[in-house]
Amino acid sequence: MKYCSQCASIIERRIPEGDNRERDICSVCNTIFYSNPRIVAGTLPVYQGKILLCKRAIEPRLGYWTLPGGFMENDEGTEQAALRETWEEARAEVTISSLFSMISVTHISQVHVFFLADLPRPEFASGPESLQVELFAPADIPWQSLAFATVEQTLRRYLDNPNPPQPHIFNISRNQLSSE
Amino acid sequence: MKYCSQCASIIERRIPEGDNRERDICSVCNTIFYSNPRIVAGTLPVYQGKILLCKRAIEPRLGYWTLPGGFMENDEGTEQAALRETWEEARAEVTISSLFSMISVTHISQVHVFFLADLPRPEFASGPESLQVELFAPADIPWQSLAFATVEQTLRRYLDNPNPPQPHIFNISRNQLSSE
Repeated sequence: MKYCSQCASIIERRIPEGDNRERDICSVCNTIFYSNPRIVAGTLPVYQGKILLCKRAIEPRLGYWTLPGGFMENDEGTEQAALRETWEEARAEVTISSLFSMISVTHISQVHVFFLADLPRPEFASGPESLQVELFAPADIPWQSLAFATVEQTLRRYLDNPNPPQPHIFNISRNQLSSE
Repeated sequence: MKYCSQCASIIERRIPEGDNRERDICSVCNTIFYSNPRIVAGTLPVYQGKILLCKRAIEPRLGYWTLPGGFMENDEGTEQAALRETWEEARAEVTISSLFSMISVTHISQVHVFFLADLPRPEFASGPESLQVELFAPADIPWQSLAFATVEQTLRRYLDNPNPPQPHIFNISRNQLSSE
């Protein structure tokens, strides 16, 4: 951030009074600009034991497989965001059953939340951000071609125990599979 | 947003190509500025059946009671954010046991997550953002003086069932108790 979005003056980086972190602050109007983590919401859609994955048509990680998901928007809830992204990327109408994982990806300031979801019928198609959408049996999951570490972790934990007593909540500091 | 934070030119509000929502876009360098929900992370600290609440020393809702919590920062996880805020506001060192609620506050684009936490000893004090910090027995909770609807909902659901099988995940469209 170089210029103030309110008055177009130069931005300084300093700790505001009463705070303990450096922020972007306007050198003229003193507006403080906070930067906070963004939420990526998605689903883990299951149809008769098979999992729905999307091959990405966009960067980052074009051509790699992911669970349907994307950035939560301002006017929606976490579940709505996950359902919207599942429709946009996989043209699938699913029913959410529970929160499965909430993973803080600290180095890129994101929180990825994946909801376990039921795909009632094997109806799906590629949305504009997907090259291909497919159901995978557990033995056929393309582990070497997954897009993101949060997707891999969510899939591994699901296959280990599809009904954990609590959602998996943890941090990862590198989204190893990702180019982000 | 009036001016581009990259080149100080005028911002326009329009739908970018390939998108379906209006965004802030620079009229000269075409940078797209996304706005996404922010996460507020907090705890519900319990000591021998009593709940720790903080009387707010800052706006919004100065003088009203809240669970300890605040905006998640860029370099931390959700649990770390909740623990940090619990220390900053209540000088309490707690142990998180589970995610209790995740509430999307759609009209102000926030997601509030509260973790159930154990306060092992009755040691706490007011941090700079609190006027007072107290343990409340369930019968003594100051329902008429709570700061936020997300806090009220979290407390009511906790008292109704302190160990739900899943976290409470829902939306509220007005944070009725709040002036936000």
